[in-house]
Amino acid sequence: MACPFCNPKESGNTIIAENEYAYVIHDKHPIVEGHLLVIPKRHYETIVEMDEKTLCGTMLLVREMEKRLMERVGVKGLTLRQNWHPFLKEDELVVRHVHFHIIPREYNDKMASGIERIELSNIKKNEIAKKLR
Amino acid sequence: MACPFCNPKESGNTIIAENEYAYVIHDKHPIVEGHLLVIPKRHYETIVEMDEKTLCGTMLLVREMEKRLMERVGVKGLTLRQNWHPFLKEDELVVRHVHFHIIPREYNDKMASGIERIELSNIKKNEIAKKLR
Repeated sequence: MACPFCNPKESGNTIIAENEYAYVIHDKHPIVEGHLLVIPKRHYETIVEMDEKTLCGTMLLVREMEKRLMERVGVKGLTLRQNWHPFLKEDELVVRHVHFHIIPREYNDKMASGIERIELSNIKKNEIAKKLR
Repeated sequence: MACPFCNPKESGNTIIAENEYAYVIHDKHPIVEGHLLVIPKRHYETIVEMDEKTLCGTMLLVREMEKRLMERVGVKGLTLRQNWHPFLKEDELVVRHVHFHIIPREYNDKMASGIERIELSNIKKNEIAKKLR
């Protein structure tokens, strides 16, 4: 199977932002509104494999998106997360191409006590993407 | 109160590794064995505040520590996590100086269903640190 993160547009994703090294899309199975993925354009399975320029370029895009979420969406908390073999029960969701989750947080949210996915409409997704572009 | 991450040694921490921009210690309240913190030497509250060199330097140390955990400790999975205002119930644990958690993962661990802290003896801590230095 072709890697969906090597070919984000063919996989039906909208690119919210990008730089030379990485791009940003919505998580297809978001935990909360504004749950983004920052993904290097080249295929790596782990952070350890990433070359210095790609790792730095990817993190600069993470920094930029966190800034936009704070300034434009008004999020009051953020969690950055990158999993290598998280051994989730929902293992069919896992794509073996490094991706960094940016997850807005709020008081008393569910993240401290586990992970639950939500449904997010395309309208809502577009609304958030518009603020972040 | 003085920031404990600005003065790690005075706060009783042992530095496991460091580079020009960041250093590594054990998490004082680990979720699992080998739970590390990678911390920039300069004080920042968020990733957004971090200058490019510090952000990149910190991530290169993250990459190095993930490599050591894989090669020397034999971990089979890893989660990288950075929280800004995670709104944990255990809020007294939170230090307002950016720190990146590196958390070894294994099949059927507890992280997918919540967070539980463990006690880790100094002997065990030293054992792991020795492998990672």
